[in-house]
Amino acid sequence: MKQVRVLFEPDGVVVEGQAGELLLDLALTAGLPLLSECGGQGTCGSCRVQVQSGRVRFLNRSGLEEQIAAPQEVLACQTAAAGDLVVHVPPETRLCPPDERITGYMGPEAAAFLRPGRTGFALGERTPVQLSPPSFDDPTPDWERLLEGLRQARYGRRNITANLDVLREIPPQLRALDFSVSATLVDEGCHHRLIALGQPEQEEALGLAVDIGTSNVKAELVQLRTGRVLAGAAQLNAQVRYGEDVISRIIWAQEHERGADELQDAVTSTVNSLIEELLQETGASQDQIIAVSCAGNATMISFRLGIPADAIRRAPHIAPVGLPPMISGAILGLQVHPQAAVFCLPAINGYVGGDITGGILATGLFEADSLTLLIDVGTNGEIVIGSKDWMVCCSCSAGPAFEGVGIECGLPARPGAIESLAYDPDQDRTTVRTIGDDPPVGLCGNGLVETLASLLDARVIDRVGNLVPDFPSPRMREANGEPQFVLLWREDTATAKDLVLRQGEIDNLLRAKAAVFAAVSTLLEELGLDIAQIDRLYLAGAFGSHLDVRTAVEIGLLPDLPAERVTVAGNTALVGAYITLLSSEAREQVSSLARATTYVDLSTASHFMEEFVAAQMLPHTDLERFPSLVSSEQGRAGGSSSNT
Amino acid sequence: MKQVRVLFEPDGVVVEGQAGELLLDLALTAGLPLLSECGGQGTCGSCRVQVQSGRVRFLNRSGLEEQIAAPQEVLACQTAAAGDLVVHVPPETRLCPPDERITGYMGPEAAAFLRPGRTGFALGERTPVQLSPPSFDDPTPDWERLLEGLRQARYGRRNITANLDVLREIPPQLRALDFSVSATLVDEGCHHRLIALGQPEQEEALGLAVDIGTSNVKAELVQLRTGRVLAGAAQLNAQVRYGEDVISRIIWAQEHERGADELQDAVTSTVNSLIEELLQETGASQDQIIAVSCAGNATMISFRLGIPADAIRRAPHIAPVGLPPMISGAILGLQVHPQAAVFCLPAINGYVGGDITGGILATGLFEADSLTLLIDVGTNGEIVIGSKDWMVCCSCSAGPAFEGVGIECGLPARPGAIESLAYDPDQDRTTVRTIGDDPPVGLCGNGLVETLASLLDARVIDRVGNLVPDFPSPRMREANGEPQFVLLWREDTATAKDLVLRQGEIDNLLRAKAAVFAAVSTLLEELGLDIAQIDRLYLAGAFGSHLDVRTAVEIGLLPDLPAERVTVAGNTALVGAYITLLSSEAREQVSSLARATTYVDLSTASHFMEEFVAAQMLPHTDLERFPSLVSSEQGRAGGSSSNT
Repeated sequence: MKQVRVLFEPDGVVVEGQAGELLLDLALTAGLPLLSECGGQGTCGSCRVQVQSGRVRFLNRSGLEEQIAAPQEVLACQTAAAGDLVVHVPPETRLCPPDERITGYMGPEAAAFLRPGRTGFALGERTPVQLSPPSFDDPTPDWERLLEGLRQARYGRRNITANLDVLREIPPQLRALDFSVSATLVDEGCHHRLIALGQPEQEEALGLAVDIGTSNVKAELVQLRTGRVLAGAAQLNAQVRYGEDVISRIIWAQEHERGADELQDAVTSTVNSLIEELLQETGASQDQIIAVSCAGNATMISFRLGIPADAIRRAPHIAPVGLPPMISGAILGLQVHPQAAVFCLPAINGYVGGDITGGILATGLFEADSLTLLIDVGTNGEIVIGSKDWMVCCSCSAGPAFEGVGIECGLPARPGAIESLAYDPDQDRTTVRTIGDDPPVGLCGNGLVETLASLLDARVIDRVGNLVPDFPSPRMREANGEPQFVLLWREDTATAKDLVLRQGEIDNLLRAKAAVFAAVSTLLEELGLDIAQIDRLYLAGAFGSHLDVRTAVEIGLLPDLPAERVTVAGNTALVGAYITLLSSEAREQVSSLARATTYVDLSTASHFMEEFVAAQMLPHTDLERFPSLVSSEQGRAGGSSSNT
Repeated sequence: MKQVRVLFEPDGVVVEGQAGELLLDLALTAGLPLLSECGGQGTCGSCRVQVQSGRVRFLNRSGLEEQIAAPQEVLACQTAAAGDLVVHVPPETRLCPPDERITGYMGPEAAAFLRPGRTGFALGERTPVQLSPPSFDDPTPDWERLLEGLRQARYGRRNITANLDVLREIPPQLRALDFSVSATLVDEGCHHRLIALGQPEQEEALGLAVDIGTSNVKAELVQLRTGRVLAGAAQLNAQVRYGEDVISRIIWAQEHERGADELQDAVTSTVNSLIEELLQETGASQDQIIAVSCAGNATMISFRLGIPADAIRRAPHIAPVGLPPMISGAILGLQVHPQAAVFCLPAINGYVGGDITGGILATGLFEADSLTLLIDVGTNGEIVIGSKDWMVCCSCSAGPAFEGVGIECGLPARPGAIESLAYDPDQDRTTVRTIGDDPPVGLCGNGLVETLASLLDARVIDRVGNLVPDFPSPRMREANGEPQFVLLWREDTATAKDLVLRQGEIDNLLRAKAAVFAAVSTLLEELGLDIAQIDRLYLAGAFGSHLDVRTAVEIGLLPDLPAERVTVAGNTALVGAYITLLSSEAREQVSSLARATTYVDLSTASHFMEEFVAAQMLPHTDLERFPSLVSSEQGRAGGSSSNT
């Protein structure tokens, strides 16, 4: 078979395939699943892409090869590659739009769960059913008649159940609608549950993918039939006022009467507020949301469910529940359909939760052929190393600095957040780029990394991370006895306040990046591995895909790997929630990979504290660990490559 | 192998088996399942019986045959027959005590579901689980640790779920009880649900078998671990005040606001009142009842669940639900454990319900080798004909006369109810036998049958069922223009009132027996069968096992079959509820036999009305259908064998 290469724009992803492969499948291999509402029949027009150059073969025409002369719109399900191609995928054709503020990387292994025609069930579905009316010859009871119709229409030999309130509606509804209905079912694992019966023509059934982070909660509203993401939103977790990290919140819950209830109410209100925002944006109604998939660490999920989380903070850090049984939306106080199914991605232990199993799923690490590293930097840092053969994970307390919590100028990635910052000491001038090109409000994770690197490069801070007191600029000043550096003067900000970075905040950022680096190093050491053996690194969490990998290496957040081996993967937890919302096979996969992943406790690893201390310099005490930086430094300036 | 015959006393049941068979298994074959708490290990002593004569072989002794010289207590699970035997089974050894007021016949096919060591699950169970405490080497989350323990202890690869309130208890309970707990689970079909977690030593888990009849509701409290029936009770269905039969109640429910709710409340209050009575009698607590199995016709079950039953009364008489999904006790307002599982035996259609599928299960009709007839006389009469190869059923409206409703002197079978009545015209004297030998209160079904037969024999009534006005006794009198006959004078009754039978009441009884007979005849005709081809007839429902079969034939309630082919089976609906309470295999069996039974609507059968009219005489217009009566009549008196 003839090999072909296809470049997908504007993502710049190249995949190799064989002549004759459909563009729909090639896009999937590229990790860019497309809409395909008709399941690849060529009838719905939803998988429209633009072929910009190359040779293709149209299934629905002569079948002969055609050279594309000028950019041409085609259906990806009806067009096969016949030679190398350049294909442009417009945003409206994407199953999961590439909005970096909300979503993250989806590997081809994960995207495969969304392949049109793949068996399995979305977490919730609405199915039209046409029943034959009862007669003396066919006196099947109403419920059994409906079951038979559902089995024929969609559900085969699945067990189907229903709550009493729905059972009570069935006899009058069947007759009112002349035995032609639309049935709404949710997948509860070992069975489906019928949660509503209505007219054949119903509003779209929607699902909610949620990432409940310790600091930030993010959600996407998804059309369950097509997988299309209708809108996304993010908010600070209202639990933040009870403590910055999970430990302090668990203690708070224990020490206050109704403490756990209060924490549960806080996160419920955050999720409900996101739901309101998404419904307002899309004009959809609460009852349309029939399925919710939640990623979150074990403490967040425990608080979400109101399950005592005390055991998490005490060795050996046991999660109350790995994979919670399916729960109804109303029981959790969510403003969704009262019987909406709520799926929570499984935790591995108390410190490695559903956000990470979601990440393993989203990146495809569980099927990787070569050694892969997943680093998720949130308020906790979690690390997974492995491949399809084995997976090992650990966690560390990074602190929420890179999420913008505890940093006065920090904020989550949203319009107005500085993603990129360069300080020019010669001009004493700062150049920034913000999300949405809005006036700058503060710095998100990406911006904080670049700021550290830029200030180090400009020698505003030294390698220990101290602001240099005699740096020759009015930006360097002191307030309340603490040195600070003005990144932007008030006339350049949206807040009309100077945007400053304080010494204490720099220390927080350094501790966060040191914890992550030390966790990676210690885990590699425990496994007898060298960083150079890592074939692919995914950096997930607080960072958007515009993060410059070299900059992250320069400050020692990431180990020194060639940039082409690193993918900045964004919110893979949310991607995991999205995939499990749409695919029962993905839900089964994530459950089994949670069981297959071994946890290593770093508190019992002898070298972790040493590693942590050594990693608090910029980039690291031991520069030999960063050979690429040393060589470029030598190339630039010569000299200071020895330890200080 | 040597054939042996074993006579079980005091039941008088003889079974044939082979030398070497255990008494435990032989008793089961006889339809007399025994307690066996240790599952046949010979350790618990619960299967103690008395061998009165014969040769046995003791497993736990030499293994040699021994001749029983004097009556000797043995363990049925450790003793094999070596020759013909007489065995006495004391009441305390019986799984299901032979209390005819409550229970009914259980065929060996049905009793086999209760065989010790048989796989499957009671509807609810309490299982001790010993878990290893968590450690760094085994950081399995609490819920998954418990699941693993449950799987090893009892549940294998079954799916197990839990409600949120139970999930919330797990982490503190596991630690408070040092990871050694007792878990209470209910079987919801495709999965088990954990409903409580407690100390290893817990009170016995109990179940409730309920027969919700249109006129009477009966319940048994059962120890789920052993199957032992702790107590039984019966009460009039409080719905009776809304109408005597299902049709009038459905109409009442439709014509009144909140009518269906009121009917639901009525039956709930009846069941709860029975529960209170049973708990008081046994000293058990509400929370111990973790499982409920309900038999009842489709209307009763619909009212019980609050599902609109309108379609039942309109052709083609569709049941709202055949096999309802499992529902929790609290949702139904039952005074049992809030998460108790409620199983309802499946309906075949609107007029043949779970009382009948329970009867098919209890009698073993579904596995019969030869043609078997089940007649269940309640407020409706239901008929099933078939064998292991096919089953056909029908129903007719009999009216509640034989249940004692609408008959002033009628009452359900309970202490003081007259079971047997003989009027001697020569002495003008009535002899009665009552249940419990208590002073007579009124007549139960058995008593009504014998009364009709006796009054006919004494020529107090003629063959048309009319009281003979000039019968020479002061007992024959008139009140309010209606003839009546005094069965017992007030000085002989517990009520200090004359016990009378009115002409209108006799007419009701005749209509009831005529409807049943006509339904049987019509169904046989539809199937091209003759009554003589029926190998076994089970008469279930309002009649206790002391009913004299010949008497029932004499009044034309039963077709003319030799008495040895007829079993008066009592409340087989309740037996069905009892068996399904204890065996998941029985629950599966009853579901599949419901699907396998074909319904024939008598309103479309041309001959039903003719049959009904002809059957209103005593025994029947066409005496040729009762050859055995004609011959005995001829033997006794000669003459009147022609139609009148």
